[in-house]
Amino acid sequence: MSSKAPVSVIGLGDMGRALAGALLAAGHPTTVWNRSADKADELVARGAVRAASAEEALLASPLTLVCLLDYDTNRAVLEPAVGALRGRALVNLTNGTPDEAREAEKWAAGAGADYLDGGIMAIPATVGTPGAFVLYSGAERHFAAHRETLEALGAAKYLGADAGIAPLYDLALLSAMDMMFAGFFHSVAMATSHEEGSAGGFTELLVPWLTSMTQVMPAFAADVDADLDADPNGPAAGAGPALAQGLDVVLAGTQNMLRAARDAGVRADFFERAVAELEERAADGVTEYTGPETVRRLRTRRS
Amino acid sequence: MSSKAPVSVIGLGDMGRALAGALLAAGHPTTVWNRSADKADELVARGAVRAASAEEALLASPLTLVCLLDYDTNRAVLEPAVGALRGRALVNLTNGTPDEAREAEKWAAGAGADYLDGGIMAIPATVGTPGAFVLYSGAERHFAAHRETLEALGAAKYLGADAGIAPLYDLALLSAMDMMFAGFFHSVAMATSHEEGSAGGFTELLVPWLTSMTQVMPAFAADVDADLDADPNGPAAGAGPALAQGLDVVLAGTQNMLRAARDAGVRADFFERAVAELEERAADGVTEYTGPETVRRLRTRRS
Ligand SMILES: NC(=O)c1ccc[n+]([C@@H]2O[C@H](COP(=O)([O-])OP(=O)(O)OC[C@H]3O[C@@H](n4cnc5c(N)ncnc54)[C@H](OP(=O)(O)O)[C@@H]3O)[C@@H](O)[C@H]2O)c1
Ligand SMILES: NC(=O)c1ccc[n+]([C@@H]2O[C@H](COP(=O)([O-])OP(=O)(O)OC[C@H]3O[C@@H](n4cnc5c(N)ncnc54)[C@H](OP(=O)(O)O)[C@@H]3O)[C@@H](O)[C@H]2O)c1
Repeated sequence: MSSKAPVSVIGLGDMGRALAGALLAAGHPTTVWNRSADKADELVARGAVRAASAEEALLASPLTLVCLLDYDTNRAVLEPAVGALRGRALVNLTNGTPDEAREAEKWAAGAGADYLDGGIMAIPATVGTPGAFVLYSGAERHFAAHRETLEALGAAKYLGADAGIAPLYDLALLSAMDMMFAGFFHSVAMATSHEEGSAGGFTELLVPWLTSMTQVMPAFAADVDADLDADPNGPAAGAGPALAQGLDVVLAGTQNMLRAARDAGVRADFFERAVAELEERAADGVTEYTGPETVRRLRTRRS
Repeated sequence: MSSKAPVSVIGLGDMGRALAGALLAAGHPTTVWNRSADKADELVARGAVRAASAEEALLASPLTLVCLLDYDTNRAVLEPAVGALRGRALVNLTNGTPDEAREAEKWAAGAGADYLDGGIMAIPATVGTPGAFVLYSGAERHFAAHRETLEALGAAKYLGADAGIAPLYDLALLSAMDMMFAGFFHSVAMATSHEEGSAGGFTELLVPWLTSMTQVMPAFAADVDADLDADPNGPAAGAGPALAQGLDVVLAGTQNMLRAARDAGVRADFFERAVAELEERAADGVTEYTGPETVRRLRTRRS
């Protein structure tokens, strides 16, 4: 008999199967359910128990992980089984917004369940491997109660009592990744517009370039934090010594990126907006390119 | 006496001073010129020779590096000294578009000068250190003639005979960096919209996350290369096995990023466009999210 806590997993898409697989690998008795039952076959062959319904899955373990397409699917699957939640714990790993997580926490509390919201910072292939991490928020005692089990999925990072902060950080990290990949595809389209260009050869230059440039981010972040307490009607905090850049050089470079994309026959909306935004700063009398100024101009309202 | 080749540097902004400093550190007799003469003071104290004019700088060495604000500035500075170019070599390190580089090469050839165009993949602080690299294009024999000197600035990568390919790759790399940083600032604005969020704490999660996600890029690049020779009117190449992702999951995630940004009071134009673009794919009957499909939709015309 295993000394590890039993866990159920509802949702066996690419990610749910990876989660259940990591729990099995860590020795947890694992019960699984999925709408299309055949997605459980391989897990069952590895020792998982197949539940006949979502309700049966909830009843089988004190802790259930849910990983479905979206919150509407979560509700469609869990609502009919709501009675089985009382006295049990639910960790939602379906991607959603902070407000959705806060609502789900209220709904779970109404059903008598402990609730945590989580954001998986991994792809299915890296779940349970070093480097994978999962963000959690909700009541700290719920996190403490299940932490050991959750560590089987990847490093467990607790962010705070507001259920919405894990999905906020999750979506912020995904947004940054999405924009990085948009940049990757844009740059690959540019490089391969040349008959001698290749995506593979270009990417050999790009990966070390981007990796080295991430090293500047902590210094930009420190500038932004320094500005958080400043008077929002006063000037934004300046750039740290290593980061000072004239707005004119940044604007000239961005205009070149715009023209080069157009010349290469690549969609350039991103750079059209970037040039317009830098020109607005110049028109406002700003002469230095800084992180705090950039973040201030992204805010549509002060929270 | 130094056994290293003499070099001149025209333009002593942040980058030009770093270039001249790296040449001095490598033992090259270095002559410098800048419109505002005082920017040469520190370099002169380290052994550089101050030229009284751009023409004097050109005449002092068989090879001159130019690093100014933009190509208009290059022309304004070099045109009056055009006679001094005959029989000498010019390496342009001012940022510009591929077409500007091709024109400059013609202009230099007309003046009897050897020409290379270069793109510096470094910031001033990292010029001449490991990790810094500089892209070059133009006639290969010019690169071969000056390669040893150019290595003092950072690893010298020769890309091809078309003078425009170094600036194309340069601007593509810068575009990818720019979009990565736009994602960084967007995500920091989101994280710090929460009263418990901090840019520094968030960035500690972000840097390893982005770094690990860059590892997927070579696989996406291989898919794109596989599609380059395919019929542009047929379907795009599919995703490699590790990359297969349903368009519905990608769309749901992107919609969450959009809603979360709006809820956090952060400008969301990028994600509005991203959602619209994914919806277009779905409307066209595409069901899988792939790199080749993404790159095809970025092209406004086939080259
Ligand atoms: N894949 C990743 O890299 C990744 C990374 C981090 C987070 N996530 C998140 O993990 C979640 C799941 O993603 P995934 O990659 O596993 O997606 P997926 O492979 O498409 O799986 C979707 C899951 O939702 C179920 N589902 C959809 N509609 C349903 C309905 N009406 N009723 C019942 N079940 C329904 C599917 O069941 P059927 O099998 O019956 O269709 C399947 O279990 C998403 O929120 C995603 O954002 C994914
Ligand atoms: N800084 C970086 O991180 C970086 C990285 C890669 C590439 N680059 C590229 O390197 C080039 C220079 O950048 P930088 O950072 O050195 O910029 P910078 O510090 O602003 O220097 C601009 C240079 O241009 C000169 N200049 C401007 N207008 C002029 C005019 N009308 N006549 C004569 N000289 C004029 C300036 O002379 P004065 O001193 O007299 O004003 C100065 O030498 C740009 O193309 C940039 O894109 C920079």
